[in-house]
Amino acid sequence: MTKVIIIGSGNVAQHLIVAFQNSQKMGTEIDLIQVFSRQKESISHLLDLDKITDDLATLEEADLYIIAVSDDAIAAVSSQLSFKNRLVVHTSGSIPLNALDDDNRKGVFYPLQTFTKHKEVDFKTIPICLESENATDFQLLEKVAKIISDKVFAINSEQRKALHVAAVFVNNFVNHLYQIGSEICQENQVPFEILKPLITETAQKIMILSPEKAQTGPAKRNDSATIKAHEAFLSNENYLKIYKILTQSIQHNGKKL
Amino acid sequence: MTKVIIIGSGNVAQHLIVAFQNSQKMGTEIDLIQVFSRQKESISHLLDLDKITDDLATLEEADLYIIAVSDDAIAAVSSQLSFKNRLVVHTSGSIPLNALDDDNRKGVFYPLQTFTKHKEVDFKTIPICLESENATDFQLLEKVAKIISDKVFAINSEQRKALHVAAVFVNNFVNHLYQIGSEICQENQVPFEILKPLITETAQKIMILSPEKAQTGPAKRNDSATIKAHEAFLSNENYLKIYKILTQSIQHNGKKL
Repeated sequence: MTKVIIIGSGNVAQHLIVAFQNSQKMGTEIDLIQVFSRQKESISHLLDLDKITDDLATLEEADLYIIAVSDDAIAAVSSQLSFKNRLVVHTSGSIPLNALDDDNRKGVFYPLQTFTKHKEVDFKTIPICLESENATDFQLLEKVAKIISDKVFAINSEQRKALHVAAVFVNNFVNHLYQIGSEICQENQVPFEILKPLITETAQKIMILSPEKAQTGPAKRNDSATIKAHEAFLSNENYLKIYKILTQSIQHNGKKL
Repeated sequence: MTKVIIIGSGNVAQHLIVAFQNSQKMGTEIDLIQVFSRQKESISHLLDLDKITDDLATLEEADLYIIAVSDDAIAAVSSQLSFKNRLVVHTSGSIPLNALDDDNRKGVFYPLQTFTKHKEVDFKTIPICLESENATDFQLLEKVAKIISDKVFAINSEQRKALHVAAVFVNNFVNHLYQIGSEICQENQVPFEILKPLITETAQKIMILSPEKAQTGPAKRNDSATIKAHEAFLSNENYLKIYKILTQSIQHNGKKL
């Protein structure tokens, strides 16, 4: 059995706890032996109290320690561990491997997904990006990752940085455009519901076409009459600025203006 | 039976032809009696040649004429019709009802979706936005629309303009952000595949949460260290500009800066 300990109790930690427990029920080789949480109650609905600790000094011996805390707490938490030369990984897209303390063997176990509290996800479909300092540790990470996910990738810190920036564009920024669309609807007494099938299809389309080939709209076909009408319609200066810069970017096919 | 004629042979026209034919097979009240196409061959795979005409002067008598041509051809096509006082509608999101010729009764039959050639869509899930000059015509449009779709809305020209601008944000602009994400991946030897589950989940999330509540990321949590690192990473000035303006917009919650 591979003994795993999770340090943290936030969104990622909770989804990992559930994924490991589900895999355990199916008789796989993972044993989630302990979870650290500053407030035991925050995860007491997920596992037995005797498996939860609120004291880092009482962490048991394990094959893998997964630090799933906020980005700015990773370095500090890793330096507070009282053991040496064990495998300690973090789960962040934006923190380099070297942020972890030198006392232990470092690694990254980054599940690339947006986790929502109380919304179940199928962990099998979530890509897990792995990094380690040596091949043996990588094999262990790969074994653990493959038990909970069908999509496991070796991604170094430099690649992970690119991936994280790209994720900001396709997740955070895309969601903000949904919000702008929703607000334009609200301001004009149109139900946002009408746009939801379009939003779904836009995301589905690029599963079979490249985004470049999937591109449509007035900017793509240089329809200046429609673009002018839209610009005249947008009374919110911020939306107008975003409309103009993204229209230009499409017209220049993403290249520098 | 409600006799329908489609004028046009592009993406929207072809998807409507298929939807009407499928509904006909199920014994509904629609009879697609004729389609106009400048090149008969372009739609000969969809219906019998004797139902296709390439001469507007030979259009038969029908209850509803649906002009599904490019935006800038709608006015001209509607003015070339040789009959009077029949119900003639267009399918465009960005053209007002009044662009249609005064000789006939005007209407709009706007299916709000992105249509891809050779990719089937379930028309039942596509919102159809209707507008007409009088209640009787609206009833006929509603009857026809409800046969092919479960989501039928009354949307006037002013609302439709708002909807079309909003659609540009959630479809055209979102797709462009997918392209930027894809290019950042390519430039850094990371498979774009890794981001696809995130893209799917981002779209699904707002089916149960408002986009405002679904917003996450460094801009939302004012994580200036990560924002600075991302800005330093982006060597493409155009991407950097987009990153900055969308980050600011999220930080100001979409309000004017």
